[in-house]
This record gives sequence, structure tokens and C-alpha cells, in this order.
Amino acid sequence: MLKNKIGIFDSGFGGLTVMRALRQRLPKENLLYFGDTARLPYGNKSPETILRYSLENAQFLSQQEIKLLVIACHTSCCTALSQVRQSLNVPIVGITEGALDETSRRFPHGKVAILGTRATIASRFYQEELARQNPSLQLFPIACPLFVPLVEEGFIDHPLTALAINHYLHPLVQEQIDGALLCCTHYPLLLPALQQELGKRVELGKSVQIIDPAIACAEKIAALLAESDLLNTSSTAGMSSFFVSDDPEKFRHFGARFLGEEIQDVELVRGVEIMSETN
Amino acid sequence: MLKNKIGIFDSGFGGLTVMRALRQRLPKENLLYFGDTARLPYGNKSPETILRYSLENAQFLSQQEIKLLVIACHTSCCTALSQVRQSLNVPIVGITEGALDETSRRFPHGKVAILGTRATIASRFYQEELARQNPSLQLFPIACPLFVPLVEEGFIDHPLTALAINHYLHPLVQEQIDGALLCCTHYPLLLPALQQELGKRVELGKSVQIIDPAIACAEKIAALLAESDLLNTSSTAGMSSFFVSDDPEKFRHFGARFLGEEIQDVELVRGVEIMSETN
Repeated sequence: MLKNKIGIFDSGFGGLTVMRALRQRLPKENLLYFGDTARLPYGNKSPETILRYSLENAQFLSQQEIKLLVIACHTSCCTALSQVRQSLNVPIVGITEGALDETSRRFPHGKVAILGTRATIASRFYQEELARQNPSLQLFPIACPLFVPLVEEGFIDHPLTALAINHYLHPLVQEQIDGALLCCTHYPLLLPALQQELGKRVELGKSVQIIDPAIACAEKIAALLAESDLLNTSSTAGMSSFFVSDDPEKFRHFGARFLGEEIQDVELVRGVEIMSETN
Repeated sequence: MLKNKIGIFDSGFGGLTVMRALRQRLPKENLLYFGDTARLPYGNKSPETILRYSLENAQFLSQQEIKLLVIACHTSCCTALSQVRQSLNVPIVGITEGALDETSRRFPHGKVAILGTRATIASRFYQEELARQNPSLQLFPIACPLFVPLVEEGFIDHPLTALAINHYLHPLVQEQIDGALLCCTHYPLLLPALQQELGKRVELGKSVQIIDPAIACAEKIAALLAESDLLNTSSTAGMSSFFVSDDPEKFRHFGARFLGEEIQDVELVRGVEIMSETN
């Protein structure tokens, strides 16, 4: 069978923000999304468990005739990208790569906050990669573990979320940062509230740039497919398919907020962990 | 081998509040705890997935020479208690049973709030059982999904938690309730804050009774073991053992808050799902 799909996985819903950027940038591509909703969230689990889950998800998608795999989950990428790459015979793009490219491009120097889950910040992936690429950057990593449950509750514009943002970003008060990198795919949904909070603290005439790496990630994928002559040249729009490990109906309903459009059919996949164990 | 242990499982840490009550009530018993930290939380997953996880956890514990199984997770009990009971040849006590007994005892009539996870409230287990036992009770079920992440962040006495409590309990403002049943093992850690919020709303001279079912559950277990002549009559103190599916160190550190004492050794169990699948 022709390998004509781009596979994307995430721990749950957040990766749909990456799928959204990809759909806009490459409208002809067939996109296949897997959300591991039975085991979410990943951000508070150990590196060993995140690695195991990531390998299992990648294994599942590699059986679906994909020409490229996108790891849309920062937590997975920071912990497992190189091992997943070693395990599969298909090109892989991690959301982290888009984030690094975009940060380097926008911030040749300055003070940059790194906002992510507990596991992403603890992995030190972004801190080390950004310091290596650009030693003159000043980095302020902050784990914001409540942002994911707040977004999943739909508390986008809510006093609780404003208070949580204020709580986590408090250490930046004195710092007059230049930008913030959103290292979790849930966080772009809080962009206006984050902008407002960070904007309070900068000098008049300056502004804080917030980086959602989804668009840079889509650009990277487009370039890679073009280089490898793997772009879909069909004249019709690409298909979108959705798989989850739990509760397709909830995913359909709730995922629309992340994807920015209605989700039709969602297929339930049971036992991704067992499938990969026996393969 | 002599079956001389009581097995307890929960999705993660919360069940340690039940273990704490059990340790106090039955100091001679050997207690074996399993926390499914690789797949937590259960409260936002589907009934099918909660059932599968519960059966797998029960299967794992049944292989550890237990004489009694305690399901310390309300979400598991509300969804899976009867199926787990059918699947195992060992007496089982669910935390829900302690909760129902205690509510009936304390509230022959009146207005009672039922606070739990989204899955617990959606299961309608408590609503239906309490209405059946006592049709004169007026019930006010409320899902409070942010309480678990707030407790897991350690935000016990924090403005964010106060605001979340205020948000969820807002519908009770006009109701002058008599009591609240805590249907999630994380919630007892918020007891003072819940008491304060609910206390604001009652008439002078009245008070709101809050039920943490852990103690009633321990009583039920003691009675069952005595009836069945299964009590440990040893003259020495019982042992406590701990197993988790992810991150023993985090469990050791973080679980102490729930157990009320230090936790020593914690053993990692990989692939509970696969073990039960192949057995």
C-alpha cells in the first residue's frame, strides 16, 4: 500500500493544535492523528513511562502506512525523540524542533521564559538545546502543571486560570523578559491570558513575544516532505482521520476546541501497549 | 503460602488515606498497596477504560496472596465494583460501601452534597444507591475535577484552591445543605477548606457535617474479617508494602502526605496490563 499519510501522536488533545497548523500549511496531505487518551496526561509521569508510551504510540502509527511521523507532544519529544527515531524506519519530526528553530530565529539574544509541564522542564531538554544553540540567551524555565487541567476544564477565560497564570509567572515579575516559548500544546489556548499577564511587566513601548511552535513545526514538515519529494500532489483536499485509546465521543466533542473545526469520526484503539508488546 | 495480607488499590496516591485508616483500626494486619501511577488519573476516563484498569489491578493483587481486596478508589468502585467482585475469588470491600453506610447512619434525612470526580458523578452510583437506601434524602451531586490536580500540586491551603472550592460549591449557596460526602480520596486533604466554605452558608447554630468514608470503610473491613475469622492474631505489628506502576521515588516522597507517615520501600511493577492479559 502507498505510504501517503502523515501520522501525528500526542498524549491526548493538545497535538490537535499542531494538526491544525499542518492542515493549513499542507491542505492536500492525509493526516492521521492518534491521541493516547487512556493514559493521559504524560506531563507528570516518569521518563521511563513516557518513553514506553511514546514507543508504543509510534509503533502503532508506523503500522498505518505513514510516510512521516510527527510527535506533537513536547513531553514525549523531550524525553523520547531520539529513541523513537532509532526504533522506526520512517522520517520523524518532533514539535521540539519547530520550537528550537523558531526561538533561534526570533531571539538572537534576550531573556526567554520556557513554559512547560513538570516532565518537560525536568528533562532540561529545552534549556540545554537553547543554551547550546545560543549561549547568549538568558533562560527562565517554569513548570506550570495546572495549565493542562485548567484548559481541559475549558477554563480558558476564567478567574481561576488568571490566578494560576499569575502564580506560575510570578518569578518573571522583575525580569522584564523578551519572550516566552510555549512548550506544551495546551498552552496556546491560553495565549491571550498569558500575553496579558506577561505584558503587564514590560517597559512601555516593549512587548513580549510568545512563541507557539506549531506553525514552525508545520513549516519544517513541509520543507522535509518537499526535499524528499514526498509531498502529496493530488488535486483534492487531504483526509483527516482520528484514533484514540479512550472515549472517542469525548475526543470528538472536546477536540474541536483544539483543532478549530468539527471532528467527525473517531476510532477507538484498544491495547496499544499490548499490540506493540507482541509485535 | 498463607494468605495473610489485605490488598488495596487506587489509581495513585489517594487510597493511602484509606490505608491510613486501616493501619490505625487494624494495626496487626499486613497491608499491601498498589497505586496505578502510570495511568492516573481515572476520574476523567471512560467507564470501559476504568473497568479494564480496575480488573487488571485486582488481578495483579490477587496474585499477591491476599485474603481481602479493598478498592480504595471511588471512581473504580462506582464503575467496576460488581464486575471485579465477579472476577475474583476473594472477599472485596469498596470504599463506596463505607461511604453509603456512613451517610445512612449520619443522615436519616436532610440535604447532602455528593462531591466527586467527573466519572464518579457521571456514573450516578452514589445518587442511585443513596436514593434507594433513603428516598427522603435530597442529593446535590457536584463534579469537582480540579480538586485532584490541586491536591497533587500540594495547593492544600492556597488561594487557587479556595477559589476552585468557591467555584464548584457555588450551586450550594442557596441550599443550606446539612452535609457533604467526599467521594474522592484526594478530597479529605481539603477538609478544612471545604468545611470553611460550606460553613459560610449555613444558619447560625447549625453546622455542615463532612463525611470522609475512610474510617467507615476500615470499620467495615474489621467487621468482615472478624466474622470470617480472618483477623491477624499475631502479637506483632503488621507490615506495610507498596507497589506502583510508575515512579516509586515520587510515590515515596509525595505519598507521605496522604498516608500521614513516612513511606520506606516502594516497588515498581511494569506492565500490569500485560500481566493480566497473559494470565
